[in-house]
Amino acid sequence: MNQYRLLKTLCEIHAPSGEESEMKNFLLDYISKVQASWKVKPQIFDGEDLQDCLVLVFGKPRTAIFAHMDSVGFTVRYQNQLIPIGGPDVESNYKLKGKDSLGFVNCKLQVNQENQLFYEFGRGIERGTSLTFDCDFRETEEFIQSCYMDNRLGIYNCLKLAETLENGMIVFSCYEEHGGGSVPMLAKFMYEKYHIRQALISDITWVTEGVEHGKGVAISMRDRNVPRKSFINKIISLAQESSIPYQLEVESGGSSDGRELHQSPYPIDWCFVGAPEDNVHSPNEAVHKKDIEAMLSMYQLLMEKL
Amino acid sequence: MNQYRLLKTLCEIHAPSGEESEMKNFLLDYISKVQASWKVKPQIFDGEDLQDCLVLVFGKPRTAIFAHMDSVGFTVRYQNQLIPIGGPDVESNYKLKGKDSLGFVNCKLQVNQENQLFYEFGRGIERGTSLTFDCDFRETEEFIQSCYMDNRLGIYNCLKLAETLENGMIVFSCYEEHGGGSVPMLAKFMYEKYHIRQALISDITWVTEGVEHGKGVAISMRDRNVPRKSFINKIISLAQESSIPYQLEVESGGSSDGRELHQSPYPIDWCFVGAPEDNVHSPNEAVHKKDIEAMLSMYQLLMEKL
Amino acid sequence: MNQYRLLKTLCEIHAPSGEESEMKNFLLDYISKVQASWKVKPQIFDGEDLQDCLVLVFGKPRTAIFAHMDSVGFTVRYQNQLIPIGGPDVESNYKLKGKDSLGFVNCKLQVNQENQLFYEFGRGIERGTSLTFDCDFRETEEFIQSCYMDNRLGIYNCLKLAETLENGMIVFSCYEEHGGGSVPMLAKFMYEKYHIRQALISDITWVTEGVEHGKGVAISMRDRNVPRKSFINKIISLAQESSIPYQLEVESGGSSDGRELHQSPYPIDWCFVGAPEDNVHSPNEAVHKKDIEAMLSMYQLLMEKL
Repeated sequence: MNQYRLLKTLCEIHAPSGEESEMKNFLLDYISKVQASWKVKPQIFDGEDLQDCLVLVFGKPRTAIFAHMDSVGFTVRYQNQLIPIGGPDVESNYKLKGKDSLGFVNCKLQVNQENQLFYEFGRGIERGTSLTFDCDFRETEEFIQSCYMDNRLGIYNCLKLAETLENGMIVFSCYEEHGGGSVPMLAKFMYEKYHIRQALISDITWVTEGVEHGKGVAISMRDRNVPRKSFINKIISLAQESSIPYQLEVESGGSSDGRELHQSPYPIDWCFVGAPEDNVHSPNEAVHKKDIEAMLSMYQLLMEKL
Repeated sequence: MNQYRLLKTLCEIHAPSGEESEMKNFLLDYISKVQASWKVKPQIFDGEDLQDCLVLVFGKPRTAIFAHMDSVGFTVRYQNQLIPIGGPDVESNYKLKGKDSLGFVNCKLQVNQENQLFYEFGRGIERGTSLTFDCDFRETEEFIQSCYMDNRLGIYNCLKLAETLENGMIVFSCYEEHGGGSVPMLAKFMYEKYHIRQALISDITWVTEGVEHGKGVAISMRDRNVPRKSFINKIISLAQESSIPYQLEVESGGSSDGRELHQSPYPIDWCFVGAPEDNVHSPNEAVHKKDIEAMLSMYQLLMEKL
Repeated sequence: MNQYRLLKTLCEIHAPSGEESEMKNFLLDYISKVQASWKVKPQIFDGEDLQDCLVLVFGKPRTAIFAHMDSVGFTVRYQNQLIPIGGPDVESNYKLKGKDSLGFVNCKLQVNQENQLFYEFGRGIERGTSLTFDCDFRETEEFIQSCYMDNRLGIYNCLKLAETLENGMIVFSCYEEHGGGSVPMLAKFMYEKYHIRQALISDITWVTEGVEHGKGVAISMRDRNVPRKSFINKIISLAQESSIPYQLEVESGGSSDGRELHQSPYPIDWCFVGAPEDNVHSPNEAVHKKDIEAMLSMYQLLMEKL
């Protein structure tokens, strides 16, 4: 069986910011089915005190990994208007899907010259209905291409890591693409209950002039936020001593769940570690398979050594 | 006696962001006078541990209602310059009022071509003095028109609701018009002391192409923030089953105390439910009386059923 | 010995946002050397639960003073590109310094017509290396001029105040120049451990049309944030009764550690009190000596009377 079948399933799930419950339910179901084969059986935290978030605790955790479950998308406004959820790439004729009380919706995005967004569909869609990209999952020798590699690949990385993880916390968060909001609650949980002070952000970054396809997982030294240098240096040292391919990223923009950890009232260090993609936030996000493998290897190393 | 006399009094109170104490004192006084006639006598929380906020607890609360006490306004800078508090509408000759150590101030706003703001008054006004719109309260068969319907109408709605409320928390917050800052403290109070996980935002929204005067209270499905869909759906279901007129709002901009609840470290769901107005943040904010009635009816329903 | 020698040493320390440990270590060392001569020996809090922050507690504290340790600077990106840390002033040929694994770096800033930033140096500098202004400390009869008066002068003010302080908390914070992030943790510490509800921001502001060199310390009535007026009024009353020169500042922009105190879940009042400078965030920040003296005198007064 194709090893990326799980990733494909994840990419197809409808879970824009605010509607992560379908993803949470899939994960709960998947974990219940496969955890018998995992090295350590995790303690599972979910329910109303965590809203739609999900936390797995393995052994004695020293480090937490954050992977956000939500994706960018669109909300139906009035008439045939759409407004964005997060910052999706927009281009006329992108295929969108969703569901309202009249049934399933498969429509097309239209963008006019003032950059206003509309849908094209045989009937009106109910106000407030959310739409996401229709998934066209493509695999070649070298690449995986699909909508929502950001951040279904970050989730996939966590699920693969979970197979052998002995000590650590895996956190599946909400709302990341649209301003955040679940990390403050999760930071409180991880610090007050487990006194965890280290976090890794399992998320996808951008191919740029400094970070290329196939050259390894990106370790971000900074983005819009500047994390504590001493923690970044510790991670880079561990990477240097290993033979895992990695690339150092330095950006002035971009953000992640790390931002809210940085601003939390807890002394939590954080670092973004993730594969790079191009065609960001479009239906055609492309990631090199070697970078997916390097990402998993790096997480295995860091969760053991940090 | 005119039923909107209380609303008029509220609209006249000088309480720009940072100076809510006059409003708090009025509310404490009003509540002490009328609560004998209320169905349930609330427990009242105020004092330095809540700064200028005020909280009423009725029975066993499951849901909290937030109504902000502050308004937009202006601060005197140097010479005859003004800078905004929040985002007031600006137009030359709007009448402003305030007070400095030399006495009461009744002056006029002037706006130049670079959109810089000045006051016109017979003497200099002391640095840092705050000014608010001079209240011209107008009532017709159908409409109420005044400055500061946003959010004195939200407060009025809470005071009317309080007459019959059996279980619930009413929260009067500060700073909402100027970036917030009191809700983190209030969220901590409501969750840690009462374990409340549901919040309604009693505030005023905009008349738009999708939300019209006289068509009922607006239930906002999203604004700049995207709340958890499952909670919004629960509210819409209750509204559908009722005969109370309501309108669904879907916007990409605008914000409220809900934003800070969303970002708090507590699992608090929130939804904005309020009457629409036009002439937003001007001395001429207009709200249809039917929408004021629908707002109160909807809160009565939701506080019972949620 | 020149009384500003300590200030010069502080200005020379390399501590851009994210790398405050060198400053923290200097302060710990300095305090251990001089505290025998202080009126009250403070309790010192540091370590991993405060990351790189540092807190001194004198007697029974009612008020906390915040002074941020970090400065603006630059991060090396790819090739010879630089990106800013915080909002440094940029001009070609400003001298920068730093260190990477190959040794010390003394290079020049270059700014092109698109306002992109580069370094000019004999070799490549490692990705993620931070650079700060090379310190040229200048003293005249009236002025001190140097990079990083913001906020090494705020720290200097605290260290001078510490010599005679009987009751109070001094907080050295991180990340202030680049979006903050340490104050939420510090607010939690000061309120939960000491129930402190008053804060003064010991930081440097701008010379403007309303705030001039040599006219005294600035008491800020507002900036981008509007603090609670009643606390500001209390401070202004104390200043009025004293003979210490001061100036009232009213701005619509600018921000400080006060912003995060304002948004914290604790009922903490705050006010920015600091000397004004010109040439903000450049290597040539200039402050009048009389304003430095007034700043210290005002803090001595406020820490006693508040």
